[in-house]
Amino acid sequence: MSHAGFARTPQPPYYAVIFTSQRHGDDAGYGAMAERMAALAARQPGFLGLESARDASGLGITVSYWESEAAITDWKRNVEHGEAHRRGRESWYAHFELRVTRVERAYAARPKSAP
Amino acid sequence: MSHAGFARTPQPPYYAVIFTSQRHGDDAGYGAMAERMAALAARQPGFLGLESARDASGLGITVSYWESEAAITDWKRNVEHGEAHRRGRESWYAHFELRVTRVERAYAARPKSAP
Repeated sequence: MSHAGFARTPQPPYYAVIFTSQRHGDDAGYGAMAERMAALAARQPGFLGLESARDASGLGITVSYWESEAAITDWKRNVEHGEAHRRGRESWYAHFELRVTRVERAYAARPKSAP
Repeated sequence: MSHAGFARTPQPPYYAVIFTSQRHGDDAGYGAMAERMAALAARQPGFLGLESARDASGLGITVSYWESEAAITDWKRNVEHGEAHRRGRESWYAHFELRVTRVERAYAARPKSAP
């Protein structure tokens, strides 16, 4: 069963890239870029899924999930060749932090929809 | 220099707990609970910081950062003794996923505020 907004990840271990960012107020093509970035990730070998939330103040957290560190390295190389990366740092974000992590344990619950 | 919304974390390795959740529409004391939970985490030994964003649809991602897995285990034990945990699963979330991860590498940038 699929749940909108949640990545369907396998049993650990796998990898997660946590991208925390503060956007500028102006859009300047950001929405289209974000869609292209998500589509690019989804075509990348080793991609497991993506979760993303941004609040009204422009602070957002996007977590992408990957089978291996090698998959992340390949993805990073693709991104760095693309327009999104070059323009992103200059125009879209006031500040961002990126963390590459290894998922050790995972739990899930759907309290009200459980049988 | 402090940046609202961003955790000030040390050089890796350290640990991150990624909590992705879908809220129900009703508040039912959620805001007060979330503040108590954040205050509880901040008093916990080994706590490094917290980042959180929730979009208008009620999908949110909260990442808490920790010095060690032992600190996460101690925090989890405290949370499970508290009201927030017991009520949370029943009343606040339609679905959540929790992942315990080890941060291997980290990068940061503040494009427009850099000297």
